[in-house]
Amino acid sequence: MDPLNAFVPGRRCEIAGAANGPLQGLTFAVKDLIDVAGWPTGGGNPDWERANPVPVRHAWVVERLLSAGASIIGKTATDEVSLGILGENPFTGTPLNPAAPDRVPGGSSSGSASAVAGGVCDFALGTDTGGSVRVPSSFSGLFGIRPTHGRLDFRGITVQAPTSDTVGWMARDPAVFAAVGETLFGEPLPDALPTRLLVATDAFAFADPAVSEALMPLVDRLADIVGARAEITLAPQGLSVWQAAQRCLQSSESLRTFAPWLDQYNPRMQFGVARNLALASLITDADRNKAALMREEARARLRLLLPPGTILCLPTTPFPAPVLGQSVSALAFPRERITCLACLGGLTGSPQVNLPGATVDGAPVGLSIVGPRGSDTALLAVARAFMDE
Amino acid sequence: MDPLNAFVPGRRCEIAGAANGPLQGLTFAVKDLIDVAGWPTGGGNPDWERANPVPVRHAWVVERLLSAGASIIGKTATDEVSLGILGENPFTGTPLNPAAPDRVPGGSSSGSASAVAGGVCDFALGTDTGGSVRVPSSFSGLFGIRPTHGRLDFRGITVQAPTSDTVGWMARDPAVFAAVGETLFGEPLPDALPTRLLVATDAFAFADPAVSEALMPLVDRLADIVGARAEITLAPQGLSVWQAAQRCLQSSESLRTFAPWLDQYNPRMQFGVARNLALASLITDADRNKAALMREEARARLRLLLPPGTILCLPTTPFPAPVLGQSVSALAFPRERITCLACLGGLTGSPQVNLPGATVDGAPVGLSIVGPRGSDTALLAVARAFMDE
Repeated sequence: MDPLNAFVPGRRCEIAGAANGPLQGLTFAVKDLIDVAGWPTGGGNPDWERANPVPVRHAWVVERLLSAGASIIGKTATDEVSLGILGENPFTGTPLNPAAPDRVPGGSSSGSASAVAGGVCDFALGTDTGGSVRVPSSFSGLFGIRPTHGRLDFRGITVQAPTSDTVGWMARDPAVFAAVGETLFGEPLPDALPTRLLVATDAFAFADPAVSEALMPLVDRLADIVGARAEITLAPQGLSVWQAAQRCLQSSESLRTFAPWLDQYNPRMQFGVARNLALASLITDADRNKAALMREEARARLRLLLPPGTILCLPTTPFPAPVLGQSVSALAFPRERITCLACLGGLTGSPQVNLPGATVDGAPVGLSIVGPRGSDTALLAVARAFMDE
Repeated sequence: MDPLNAFVPGRRCEIAGAANGPLQGLTFAVKDLIDVAGWPTGGGNPDWERANPVPVRHAWVVERLLSAGASIIGKTATDEVSLGILGENPFTGTPLNPAAPDRVPGGSSSGSASAVAGGVCDFALGTDTGGSVRVPSSFSGLFGIRPTHGRLDFRGITVQAPTSDTVGWMARDPAVFAAVGETLFGEPLPDALPTRLLVATDAFAFADPAVSEALMPLVDRLADIVGARAEITLAPQGLSVWQAAQRCLQSSESLRTFAPWLDQYNPRMQFGVARNLALASLITDADRNKAALMREEARARLRLLLPPGTILCLPTTPFPAPVLGQSVSALAFPRERITCLACLGGLTGSPQVNLPGATVDGAPVGLSIVGPRGSDTALLAVARAFMDE
């Protein structure tokens, strides 16, 4: 039984990890966009599952975790082919948000967040192209990481938008969260923590005032750990300008990825997902060029802001999870607002970690820390220190 | 069992007609967009069925036919909410085309055509907004009528585009075909047949040469029945110009009809159907005004061409049914070509009847006759005389 509705029906595959290893005794769930040998990769859509052969090989990340001793307990629900940020899926059902049962779990790594927050496994793998690990982590009160783009081998994982796609994970316990990182990044957490914290005032101002207020004690705690603190503007061009650039690039790449499948299989999809793909066909080369230049500006901005030893923080989401069952139009603007804060991951490729610990109206909302490219283990070290504080 | 896959699974409702009446002993099937009291109106989409209450009253046409003695044997498959012309539906399955089993049945009244062509009932109800009775009739070798727009009561039938929507039927036997018309139109067939036949040379030239050639003996037979024969141009502005106008108006109205459902239910749909609805949101008022003017031109053209006693003929479809299982892109242009010949129904509101009797490569293709508004029973009389010939 799966009272959380976190797992894809019929896909509670149990695969034991190696007898020895640093993750021995830990259990994990795998988003159903990541290959587990011998089990279909369903991608949250029956016509995706039908179109793709059952994988004969584990994805690289799955193989690494099994070799390190962790055991798989099942494959988890996802928004259709990763195209969603809220976690509602009519084909496999919407997973429960255990931290806020009347609200969406967040997506697209919805089932992974639900399984971890519900306590049925120690950690879970997800993918994050435009926010799909960070947003459900924020909404469900979990640690979650989007690694540096390109750092972890993406073999065996369903592509959406290659210049933004990453594979990450979520956990309740910062020690587990860090241990998975040591295994996958292949290096121990550094002893020295970053020494300077930047607070992205434009991002805090963009979030609901109640969210910024709820996160302030977490920012203070971070500043205590790190030392120096300064306020900065993250996106001088505007968060919405960055978001538009990411949306343009990600939508274009998504359509290019899925076009052969759409054409050959004419798949059943939620109207809202299909509509976004259809409208992506209207994006021009001029739009893409402009967006690609803005991406360079965003990358330049982060290089400028984040020399080694500096991290920045911002709200992961501008509000806690929306309540379940709202109409497409009611959720359209909230989706856009979420991606205004989440866009920097895909746009800049920088690593980002969600720290839990705040609530608004009883529902979780997370604080994100972002470091320079390659600083993944430093962020995990901050997360561990943050909880020890 | 339903080897034709014509009926919606679980919806073989059997409702006996009145003990006496002109249609006594005849059986019919009802497209699952037309209400039968006590049975869901599924509309070929699980989320349409979920969104709509089970009707407590028969549609007007159903009530009339039952009162006249005909009996229902089931509800038949349709393209999703009538949005399709080929009959492929992944939710309920694609009905067999008994006349050409390797080809699509045509749609959206796909199951109705399949059931009648497969011999499991005497006639079947369908709806025709942009060709949904005429096209499957052509593809399956059946008599089929799209009545004068507005002539038959549309109560209890799922609306698509109100200025084009009609309810019609299909039959194998011209006597049955005519008898249903006498019941629904409430008048006997006229004794006097039309006296002048116009041959729409632009429409014949637009069809595949093999189709025009195969239809010529039918045209000759028609001319023998009717008497005088003349060649005319149907659409001086161009069939494709008429088609663009109909497409614009029908797409706009469809989106307006279904927008509340799309918004509230975010339904699962085939990508191709969802895409057309999404792209309809780009149509402007200026586009609509231009299209509405072209509709007036088309209506004026038919008023000019069709004084009382005159009918015109054209190929119903430019080719026989496409083979099954083609990609979305492979079928895109064929769909447009089909609607270039079918558009005059929705655009002008004139009644149109498909006459079977020709094949190309072993697959049926039909000849259409079109009369002035209100000449429905005259067209049925021609159809009956045509088969007696």
